Amino acid sequence: MLTPSKLAYVPFVSVHNMMRLIHANGLSSMLIRIADTIEEDFLRWDEFDKTPRVASHSDVGVIELMPTSDGELYGFKYVNGHPKNTAEGLQTVTAFGLLADVQSGYPVLLSEMTMLTALRTAAMSALAAKHLAPKGATTMAMIGNGAQSEFQCRAFQAICGITHVRLYDIDPAATKKCAANLENSGLHVTACATSEDAVAGAQIITTCTADKQNATVLTDNMIGAGVHINAIGGDCPGKTELHSDILYRSDIFVEYPPQTRIEGEIQALDAHHPVIELHDVFAGRHVGRIADKQITLFDSVGFAIEDFSALRCIKDAIQGTPFFEPLDMLADPDDPRDLYGMLNRAK
Amino acid sequence: MLTPSKLAYVPFVSVHNMMRLIHANGLSSMLIRIADTIEEDFLRWDEFDKTPRVASHSDVGVIELMPTSDGELYGFKYVNGHPKNTAEGLQTVTAFGLLADVQSGYPVLLSEMTMLTALRTAAMSALAAKHLAPKGATTMAMIGNGAQSEFQCRAFQAICGITHVRLYDIDPAATKKCAANLENSGLHVTACATSEDAVAGAQIITTCTADKQNATVLTDNMIGAGVHINAIGGDCPGKTELHSDILYRSDIFVEYPPQTRIEGEIQALDAHHPVIELHDVFAGRHVGRIADKQITLFDSVGFAIEDFSALRCIKDAIQGTPFFEPLDMLADPDDPRDLYGMLNRAK
Repeated sequence: MLTPSKLAYVPFVSVHNMMRLIHANGLSSMLIRIADTIEEDFLRWDEFDKTPRVASHSDVGVIELMPTSDGELYGFKYVNGHPKNTAEGLQTVTAFGLLADVQSGYPVLLSEMTMLTALRTAAMSALAAKHLAPKGATTMAMIGNGAQSEFQCRAFQAICGITHVRLYDIDPAATKKCAANLENSGLHVTACATSEDAVAGAQIITTCTADKQNATVLTDNMIGAGVHINAIGGDCPGKTELHSDILYRSDIFVEYPPQTRIEGEIQALDAHHPVIELHDVFAGRHVGRIADKQITLFDSVGFAIEDFSALRCIKDAIQGTPFFEPLDMLADPDDPRDLYGMLNRAK
Repeated sequence: MLTPSKLAYVPFVSVHNMMRLIHANGLSSMLIRIADTIEEDFLRWDEFDKTPRVASHSDVGVIELMPTSDGELYGFKYVNGHPKNTAEGLQTVTAFGLLADVQSGYPVLLSEMTMLTALRTAAMSALAAKHLAPKGATTMAMIGNGAQSEFQCRAFQAICGITHVRLYDIDPAATKKCAANLENSGLHVTACATSEDAVAGAQIITTCTADKQNATVLTDNMIGAGVHINAIGGDCPGKTELHSDILYRSDIFVEYPPQTRIEGEIQALDAHHPVIELHDVFAGRHVGRIADKQITLFDSVGFAIEDFSALRCIKDAIQGTPFFEPLDMLADPDDPRDLYGMLNRAK
């Protein structure tokens, strides 16, 4: 065979290599690094092309492409959401992503993103809470103890200084799994029998459940003054977690309003209900928490820039490491007009 | 390391393996196979989700995602178009694509598509010509002798029975390259000094030039009665190849009108100018060629379903061959809710 030129190869980070990379750096430090990169990118919000995700819906789930660009790098994520997958032994969400050079259009990174999305979602939540949660918060209620839950707990530990987590899931086996996984994390873990029990004494309440339907994971009477709510699971049309009374009592913070109004908790509200964009808070154009009794709510849906930041972080992190393989994904003939000649010579 | 489960692996067809696959089957037979699959898919047109491509434009080029789905399989292509790349020794177009299972959202094929797009574009052109070109056509003028030209010639040979090609390019070196590449193809090749010379005696005229500007590769007086024009190069806003007088004399056939009106030759015409959809011709709902003197024009821009068909073809063609590698792209923990545990155990 002829050896493809260097440009023909795209660095690829497999799941195996992503896990090695995370362990080589430490999970806490990776979460912090991703949160820092997201904040950095949110601070240059206007430089980004912001396209709503391109979704292909079916009866059982959705497949989405989430593209964005800052004019230098272009990135997109492929992600599916299939709530019924778990019952079949499959992941609800799998994902991969790509970065490309805007100047040439050539891909420069292909990466698994099932693992990476778990990290960036947790990093984004903790980053928002760093700006919104009551100062000195030590305890988080974690409602919904699925695949995302441990990452949330670890990110709030690393980024917000949370020391205690109170777990609840309608399936006690999920709680047991989550508690076992967090055993050596340094977090004090309490398994709770009800969601009411879980929120008791918590300054931060994270909801991350997976049903594709309007659910009421939190009711109004469960929410005391001054808490920060981190609502992860309400993230597609018809899927919400909070009773709307909670929304009316909260200051609502979002990533990108045109997307959140369709996919987030606020789909239950009037289209003009006021929301605050997180990039304005990060940049100091808007104050996050203004009062002790204020209820702040991060209505998280996951935005393309966060994936872009996470991929950018990985692109830098793999430099000089063995945690990627070159993938022969691009035809790059010596003479760019001679694709056919390249094929002929490969005979 | 723990061994990922079978589902965690996505079959990946590299450029090297794509070329091996093409040679193992023969280029002609691959072109025919792709054309047949495109025709098959165009015959079930209504089953497809038809989204216009999602484009990210910059000063120097465009990066596009082209998704579609037939309800069973979901597919998308990543493709860039950077006309200035050639001068820098890079490909104008590079591409890769993916197929996924709609039921689970899990990817089932990742493939290079720089080479594959060259094949599917040529196969689509020849498929259209099979329905539109004058019966018994033997000679094709090939104007623009870049990376796509030899594939066009070979597809028209394999699918339409073309025996003679007449080459012209503003750069004689491109023509020389094209002629040399076609030497053992069985085609009679004539290098021409002007485009007027190239079209002399041709029943089919293919234009495939690359400038991102409105060019006039063909003028009205060059087009005699009864020819079929296969216009490939006019494929994005501001990029056309034909004088509009030719358009007014032709019956115009297109892939998907909403896209062609933005990207094709017909962007020069009124938004209501009549066009005929090729899937209607393939299905017999519309007659293609109705008279000897009729000028037929395929205003090709390239549509997502063609990429879907090409990927579907490759997915079948690699079965039982060594022409793919399993790519560890999906995290697939034993317990789908236990992504964190999978990470922990990989330590």
